[in-house]
Amino acid sequence: MIKTALIMAGGKGERFWPKSRQSLPKQFLSLSGDNKSMLQLTVERISSTVSLNDTFVVTNTYYKTLVAKQLPGLPEENIICEPEGRNTAPCIGLGSAVISNRYPTEDPVMIVLPSDHMVKDITTFGDCLEKACDFAEINNSIVTIGIKPNYPETGYGYICFDTETGTNGVYKVSSFVEKPCREKAVEYLESGKYLWNSGMFVWRLSSIREAYRSFLPDTYEALEKIKDALSCDPAGNINDFFNTMDPESVDYGIMEKSDNIYVLPGDFGWDDVGSWPALSRINDTDSTGNYIAGNVTAVDTANCIIDSSSKRLVATLGIKDMIIVDTDDVLLVTDRDHAANIKELTAEIKNSENDKYL
Amino acid sequence: MIKTALIMAGGKGERFWPKSRQSLPKQFLSLSGDNKSMLQLTVERISSTVSLNDTFVVTNTYYKTLVAKQLPGLPEENIICEPEGRNTAPCIGLGSAVISNRYPTEDPVMIVLPSDHMVKDITTFGDCLEKACDFAEINNSIVTIGIKPNYPETGYGYICFDTETGTNGVYKVSSFVEKPCREKAVEYLESGKYLWNSGMFVWRLSSIREAYRSFLPDTYEALEKIKDALSCDPAGNINDFFNTMDPESVDYGIMEKSDNIYVLPGDFGWDDVGSWPALSRINDTDSTGNYIAGNVTAVDTANCIIDSSSKRLVATLGIKDMIIVDTDDVLLVTDRDHAANIKELTAEIKNSENDKYL
Repeated sequence: MIKTALIMAGGKGERFWPKSRQSLPKQFLSLSGDNKSMLQLTVERISSTVSLNDTFVVTNTYYKTLVAKQLPGLPEENIICEPEGRNTAPCIGLGSAVISNRYPTEDPVMIVLPSDHMVKDITTFGDCLEKACDFAEINNSIVTIGIKPNYPETGYGYICFDTETGTNGVYKVSSFVEKPCREKAVEYLESGKYLWNSGMFVWRLSSIREAYRSFLPDTYEALEKIKDALSCDPAGNINDFFNTMDPESVDYGIMEKSDNIYVLPGDFGWDDVGSWPALSRINDTDSTGNYIAGNVTAVDTANCIIDSSSKRLVATLGIKDMIIVDTDDVLLVTDRDHAANIKELTAEIKNSENDKYL
Repeated sequence: MIKTALIMAGGKGERFWPKSRQSLPKQFLSLSGDNKSMLQLTVERISSTVSLNDTFVVTNTYYKTLVAKQLPGLPEENIICEPEGRNTAPCIGLGSAVISNRYPTEDPVMIVLPSDHMVKDITTFGDCLEKACDFAEINNSIVTIGIKPNYPETGYGYICFDTETGTNGVYKVSSFVEKPCREKAVEYLESGKYLWNSGMFVWRLSSIREAYRSFLPDTYEALEKIKDALSCDPAGNINDFFNTMDPESVDYGIMEKSDNIYVLPGDFGWDDVGSWPALSRINDTDSTGNYIAGNVTAVDTANCIIDSSSKRLVATLGIKDMIIVDTDDVLLVTDRDHAANIKELTAEIKNSENDKYL
């Protein structure tokens, strides 16, 4: 079996501002205290399953140099550039076209992964990927990796699966469910029938191409033109074709419409690192629940995220549940309840003379 | 009548760290957005009552240069240096000795003022000082300026006065009361018989010398020796005498013991600027109660003090009652309830390798 990976690294990661900037989105940051970016960790995490030659990174043209710099071993031609972000269906379609040109006479398995998530248990994760690849190859099915929830998260989409239909631990998906309210999330958690939608997929190239043809025929046609254009000139201009594709997520455009979708429940310490509070989940915290990085003196301080990458002393007294992000040129102070709404703040800044700080 | 002023400017003002530092205490800072330090404002505030030649500043030796720099018109010999801080009784005693040498054959009135308080209504304040001077001169009494309370502050000492004994608006003091609990403070406020102890005093030189002789005889003896030494050499070394004096406040050592104490109730927008929350009392606030200085973008932010003297952008989201002080090399984040306890934080820093930031 030929295994390829498509890593999606075109996101803006705005919710990690001011550490993330327009010029340096979240996937290029180190957020887990090990000096490796989330993109680097993503590639490293699959290295025992997929070779670098078969690893593809799809990103925005603007970040191509950054990807090349962070992944010096990745062949340059494996960096795929979107002219602009049009959600995951065009993005994954573009990646599929490039991989299809690379393997014109084969039908490789594709692992599709976000570049900005964290996984604690790499071994279990690797085993999970292998199992998903086997299932996808044998059954010509689309396999999503679902995450066993351990608390009633309201910020994720959920996958409802048929617990009776398992084959080798892979189950038929009943439905995809939008982010639930707290009450529903508790119900999902207790039922044992729901998994978090991690945005990780495994399929044969032929399976996903067939799915585009069935459910997103216009996008499929544009992708065929892109495939042809790139087969003549891998560095050719695909903008005109790319920009005809409707912005659409692969979840909404394909997953929710197909009945050939299976899910493999995974339990490997996954986190989507959605906003600043995630840092106290993916990193160790002190005895009062603080995640602290940098030169910080914290007195009577609990359950806070304090991330200082400046050379200054950060001193805190009598605070809890706060988020303090201190960079050389910007200081952010918010709290756990508001960290996910940071776009309200950056929108305000965008309309001011401080927009250079975004 | 010869009127002199003794301005006490030897304090450390630690509760305004990190804007105040060991090398730049509170009285040398501008906290009211007008680019004048509190010491400069104090001198300016009495300028229609006392000439600069009769204005004396008593400070720590360490801050002499700073005083001279901030008050270029003040005669150098009017800067009186304490070898070390030993509370207000030795401090005021030393000032009295210097003024006594300046006027060996006269009995001037002395106005004693802290250098780190704010007054909003300068005209009323000036009228109040004149009235206190007149009373002190005619009656040979010690006059304190009491502040009419407008809310039940628990952080100030109170003066209880006999509302029946007024002469020209000056009343006999019944007792001095320590900082009260909330319940007591409400009682004091409602009674109309209590005033805030502002630490501002007016007396004839002969009255205060007599008071030292009666209530602090050992200190009086040391002060006589200091006076003699300075009359021979105004720049002479007084350390040996000074350091024999017990550290003592003039309130406890004299005010609470004498029965010749009167109080003049004042109502001129006084604030002792005790800790960071004072900034929203002495300065204008925005429509959601924030006092903001510097380049700050505040969204969903209420009742906060944000003081940035760095060149950075300070961005806040979804916070209230917070204190954020951003300087070039230190960031402080605390809240209104804890700002007065900042010494808990600076004590921790003092015992670390960050002590250079104090």
